This record gives sequence, structure tokens and C-alpha cells, in this order.
Amino acid sequence: MDIQQEVTQLLEAVKKKKPLVHHITNYVTVNDCANVVLALGGAPVMADEPREVQEMVSLASALVLNVGTLNQRTIESSILAGKKANELGIPVILDPVGVGATRLRGEAVKRITAEVQLTVLKGNMSEIKNIYGIEGITRGVDSLDDSREGGKEIAKALARQLHCIVAITGAVDIVSDGEKVYCIENGHEILSKITGTGCMTASIIGTCLGTKERPLYAALLGIMVMGIAGEIAYDQLNDKGSLGSFRVKLIDALGSLTSEIMNERGLLYEV
Amino acid sequence: MDIQQEVTQLLEAVKKKKPLVHHITNYVTVNDCANVVLALGGAPVMADEPREVQEMVSLASALVLNVGTLNQRTIESSILAGKKANELGIPVILDPVGVGATRLRGEAVKRITAEVQLTVLKGNMSEIKNIYGIEGITRGVDSLDDSREGGKEIAKALARQLHCIVAITGAVDIVSDGEKVYCIENGHEILSKITGTGCMTASIIGTCLGTKERPLYAALLGIMVMGIAGEIAYDQLNDKGSLGSFRVKLIDALGSLTSEIMNERGLLYEV
Amino acid sequence: MDIQQEVTQLLEAVKKKKPLVHHITNYVTVNDCANVVLALGGAPVMADEPREVQEMVSLASALVLNVGTLNQRTIESSILAGKKANELGIPVILDPVGVGATRLRGEAVKRITAEVQLTVLKGNMSEIKNIYGIEGITRGVDSLDDSREGGKEIAKALARQLHCIVAITGAVDIVSDGEKVYCIENGHEILSKITGTGCMTASIIGTCLGTKERPLYAALLGIMVMGIAGEIAYDQLNDKGSLGSFRVKLIDALGSLTSEIMNERGLLYEV
Repeated sequence: MDIQQEVTQLLEAVKKKKPLVHHITNYVTVNDCANVVLALGGAPVMADEPREVQEMVSLASALVLNVGTLNQRTIESSILAGKKANELGIPVILDPVGVGATRLRGEAVKRITAEVQLTVLKGNMSEIKNIYGIEGITRGVDSLDDSREGGKEIAKALARQLHCIVAITGAVDIVSDGEKVYCIENGHEILSKITGTGCMTASIIGTCLGTKERPLYAALLGIMVMGIAGEIAYDQLNDKGSLGSFRVKLIDALGSLTSEIMNERGLLYEV
Repeated sequence: MDIQQEVTQLLEAVKKKKPLVHHITNYVTVNDCANVVLALGGAPVMADEPREVQEMVSLASALVLNVGTLNQRTIESSILAGKKANELGIPVILDPVGVGATRLRGEAVKRITAEVQLTVLKGNMSEIKNIYGIEGITRGVDSLDDSREGGKEIAKALARQLHCIVAITGAVDIVSDGEKVYCIENGHEILSKITGTGCMTASIIGTCLGTKERPLYAALLGIMVMGIAGEIAYDQLNDKGSLGSFRVKLIDALGSLTSEIMNERGLLYEV
Repeated sequence: MDIQQEVTQLLEAVKKKKPLVHHITNYVTVNDCANVVLALGGAPVMADEPREVQEMVSLASALVLNVGTLNQRTIESSILAGKKANELGIPVILDPVGVGATRLRGEAVKRITAEVQLTVLKGNMSEIKNIYGIEGITRGVDSLDDSREGGKEIAKALARQLHCIVAITGAVDIVSDGEKVYCIENGHEILSKITGTGCMTASIIGTCLGTKERPLYAALLGIMVMGIAGEIAYDQLNDKGSLGSFRVKLIDALGSLTSEIMNERGLLYEV
């Protein structure tokens, strides 16, 4: 069995386990994040009050941290929940939305990565470059960063530095565990024309992490799921520019994915 | 005229009165809540700053409290708005989302039920059991609790204890005013596969309460509205697994309900 | 070339410039606001923490302030970001949602208009009347105010007073720069039956302002865009009462507008 088969089979484990996924996330795309977790067979819970996040994460199978609309309170909560998750062996994914745009985001992400052992770090190229210490140009949270120069090297090096899986999303997605590097060529550019597809990808990876299978596979699966669902949704559009309909069909597609479909469409390979 | 006819006729009163419904609710499903109030002919307003909630609720015909993403500020606001609503005779519905998951939620719900006279308390079985003092197992906010053992007794007893209508949602919904107990068998399990249907039900009951008709009828109507709209939306799906499309058709159905349709499909009975 | 042609041509400039639009807005309709900015070709960013809003707005081409779910923190952020935008010559639009409903909203809007030089102020008749100092009756944020008596005079006078464009939305929209007054008769009443169309209009105007073309034209364009997209979406409904489908088709329509379509359907005239 090749890696793609192993990864896509994990989808059945997600449906069986029905993981509860605790999110501390932004209020822009939170509803979409909840719906994708449900579409995959998981259960979402959103809670960001410092006084309850440790208890909440203790009930969960995975923790998703997303700094898209961070504030003083949610930074605090993210640290508290992340540390508790570490204590209990609950996997943690961080989506460092817009890091590089402001000093606060940089400091918040620095604190989180210093105090919490991440399982997966997922961002676009400019976000990951920023964390890696390279001056990236962040332009909003929904923009597409085309430059992939050095992406594979950065993913690998940062994965080693942070002892976690690093996933860089883009036209071609790059994922590394510090040893190996994989690329995924699924997806469609229309995914960047609706809000939240990046956040949803983090939630999907979080849901896959909730199976407690290999984090590398969870990251690869999560990215493939979003990419392939995007392709299917696009294929089913009557008018290819219909962004509202695309969004509806994306959730439809996410709810109907199977290992077989994913294997057929999958474009995952080691580099 | 039987009770189902009386209840469903209240739908026309909602459309006529166009009640303004003040919400202090979570940021996950708030947009859906606003849209269902509008679909029924009401007007939603969301406001959660302690310094303005008393004034805001004074303009409203009903108050919806939902602790889904509670924090220190919104707990405070809920108490302030709830007390003001009591003073002015404005009905209050509480949706104790996730109570039992954390101590904070338990304390918040305890404070609210102690300081505010609720008109309706609506939750799933584990939430209602938790409030009733039975150790329930809360597993996320979107999960379905199948155990209905003793549900009717709990609804009745809790309704007496809190002097309000208690509604327990599930495969079969149970509603009691402390004297009588009613069941509703409308709905479809697909409703648990998209986020927010529980919150929307509370908003719909809130909208019905805004007519100032009998609270028992408002609770029964609100639950029937969501159940029947779910059935209609499911019937109209081409692909029965399409969760994105289901959500769209659910709002379509909510906006097109009439007393006649509801009477035809209604499965409300006293037990 | 008449004014309508000049205004609608600006739509191509929006697509070319792809402006980044910073929002400090409410959590009810924020997802829709992000999606309409993307549908027009812009890039949205939402950030409301006082410690980062000055930096964030510095990266943006326009700032949208919306007090729909204001709180102490977001009022502070709005002032900080607004002042910074003024310093840098970045246009600012304010949507004074629900002003008149509570003292806090009145004070917040008063502070913002006193401390920040707005480029555009957009509201419904009761909101604009309230700001103008006339006792308006605010009834929720989604209600339609039919009274247009004196609307033209108020728009003109308030535009002079605040040195900005004033746009009053309603069945007929009224826009003034303090010298001239324009009306737009596009739109459809179904737009008031889903939440967020007012907020989306502000976000669209913000996106148009991001071109740094004439603010008057940006305001006129933004209002026409929403009105015409609403008409197209309504035309394409199979069942004219389908609110969920309307919302999907509205985003579809927003993403497919061109100057030509707008010119054909446009009902903009000077009065």
C-alpha cells in the first residue's frame, strides 16, 4: 500500500471515531469550521473563555488554535488550552492567520510556539516564512501566495525546529515531518475566492488528528480533503463563477467524500 | 380545535406581530439565528455589551440567552438583560449550550436560573439532565443524546422547579409546563449534521414568544417549526447527503411555512 | 459619459486594484462581509484588538467601521484605527448600525464622528436621522424604514456638517456629497429579509473606496452593486420566497457583475 492509500484510509477512522474538536478560533469563519467538522463526522465545540478552556479541551480529541481575530483574552486561552492539551497528549494544530501583518500576531504566535508543543503548524507561504524568520509580505488572510521558492526546505527545517508537522498551503501544498517532504497538487484556485477555506483546512486537519493516528497522515489527509472537495464542488458548478453556489457545494462534497474517491483523485507524492 | 391546531395558528400571529428578538448568543451560529428570525417574519437584534443590553432588551418583544461561547462579559450581560426583561414582562428563553462540559457553564446557568425568571428553558437531554442535577455526559454541542429515559418526568419536575416551560429536544422532543407533557415527533436526524439547529430552535421559540401568546404554545410551535422545516428541506434534497444544500433549503423551508402545512405534517401529542 | 457610466466603470478599477479592506465589524454578518469583498475582487481582513488595529489598517486600502455588536474594546479599536487611517489618507466608512437604539451606540457614533474624519457615512433613514439629531425610531437592524420625507435635505445637510459623503439606504437610496444629491432605485425588498445586506453594502462601498477614486462614486457604486445583485438574484429564484437560495444567488450575482450589466440595469439619477 502506498502512502496515498494509507492516508486516505484514515478518513474512515475519522468517521468511526467521531472526534470532538475544540476550537479557539476567529469569529469570521467559525460557522464554516463547525460545519466542516460535522460534515466529516466529527463534533465541533468552540470555547474561548480562559476560565473554561482547560476543562473543555480535556473533553476533546484535538485542539485547533487560529489567531485570525485574536485578542488579549483569546491569546491567553490559547496558551492555557494548548498547555493542557500537551499534558493530556491531545494533538494541537495552529493556524497562524495573518502572522506578519502586525507585531501582536507575531508575538502571539511566538508565545504559542514557545509554550505549546504543536502537533501541526499550517499556514500559507508568507505566514510560514514569517515564522521561520524570513521577512514575508502578508497581504490579508485570503490572499494566495504564489512564491514556493525554498518552500520544501523551509517546511523541513521548521518542522525540525518546532518538532512538529509543518504544512504550507498554496497552489501546490507542501508538508513535512522534518524528515520527508510531500506535495499535494489537489485543489482549485476558486478556493481562494471564498473566505474561510484556510481556516476550514485547519479544522479538518484537527478532526483527522482527533483519530490519534500519525499526525503526518492527518495533515496530509486534511489538506487532500479540502483540495478534492474543492475540485468536486467546482466540477458541479453550472456557472463556474458562482461563488455562493461553490460554497454550498463545497460542504456538500465534504460530506460525501470516501477513501475511494480520494484515492482516485489524489495527487500526493513524496519529493 | 385540538392543541396542534391552536399551536400552529400561532404562526400567523408571529408573521403579523413581527417581534423584535434580542439575542445574547454565541458567535458560531449567530448569523443563522438572525436569518431564521427574519424568515419567520420577526426582526433580530444582537447586542451583548453590558452597558447597553438593558436598553436594548427594553425595545424587544423577547430575549434569547445562549451560552454557547459564553465569557465573563456575556454572562454579566445575560443577567442584566434577563432581569430587565423580567421587570418589563418580556419573555426570556435560555439555551444552556454545553452546560455540564465545564464548571463555568454550570455556574453561569445556575446564576442565570437563580437571578432571572425564565419563560422557557430549552436544551438537549444531557443539558437538561445536568441542570436537573443528574450527572449527564455532555459531548459537544452538536451531538445527539439518545437516552430519553425519564425525560418526561424530568421535564415536568424541572418545569415546576423553575416555574417555566421546559423543552427537551431530541429524536422525540418533550415539552412540559409542569402540568402536562407533550411530545413532538417531527424532525429528521440530518438536522444534527449541520451546526446551529439547536440555537436556531431557541431563536424560533424566542420569536414565537414575542407574540406574548401562551409560552407553552410558543415552545411547542418553535420546536415544530424547526422539525417540519427540516423534514421539508430533506425531502427536497436531490442527494440526501448534501449538507450544504440542506442548510440552504432549511432556510427556504422556514420562510415558506404556513399553519396549514404545519397542521398537515404536525406530530404533536399529549402524553 | 453620464454619471452612471462613470460610476459603473469604477467596478473594473476595483477588480484591478484588489484592495485590502480592514473591517472592525459585528460578529453577526462578518462572514458575509468577507465573502462580498472577495466576490468583488478585494481582500478582507478583520481585526479588532486595540493593540494591532493601527498596524493592520496601515496595510489596508480602506477601513470599514460597523457598530452592530459594539463593545468597549471595539469602540476603542474603531477610534484608534480611524485616526490612523486619517493620518495615512486611507478612506473610512462608518455603518452606524442601530444608533438610536441605545445611549451607548449614540455616544460611540458621536465619538467616532468627532474624532475620525469619515469618508462615507451609510445608514438607513432612522440611523441617519438619529445622527442628524432628529428623534428617529430605531426598530432592529434589519427593519425597513419607509419614510423618506426630507431624506434628500438631511443627506445634503449632514454631508456638509460631517464633510463626508452621506448615503441613506432604503427603497430609494439617497446619496449626497453636500453639493449634489443622487437617488438610486435599484434593489428589491427581499434584500431586507435576510440579515447582513446593510453591512455587506458598507463592505462593498469600502472595497470601492479602496480604489482611491472619488468617494462619491464609490458610495454610489457600492449601493448600486448591492441593489443590482439583489435584483439578479431575485430574478433567478425558482420559488420567489426562498430566502436561503436568495442568499446563495446574491453572492453568485455579486461575483459576476460587470460594468455593462450595471449600466444596463442602473437606475441612478441626480435630483
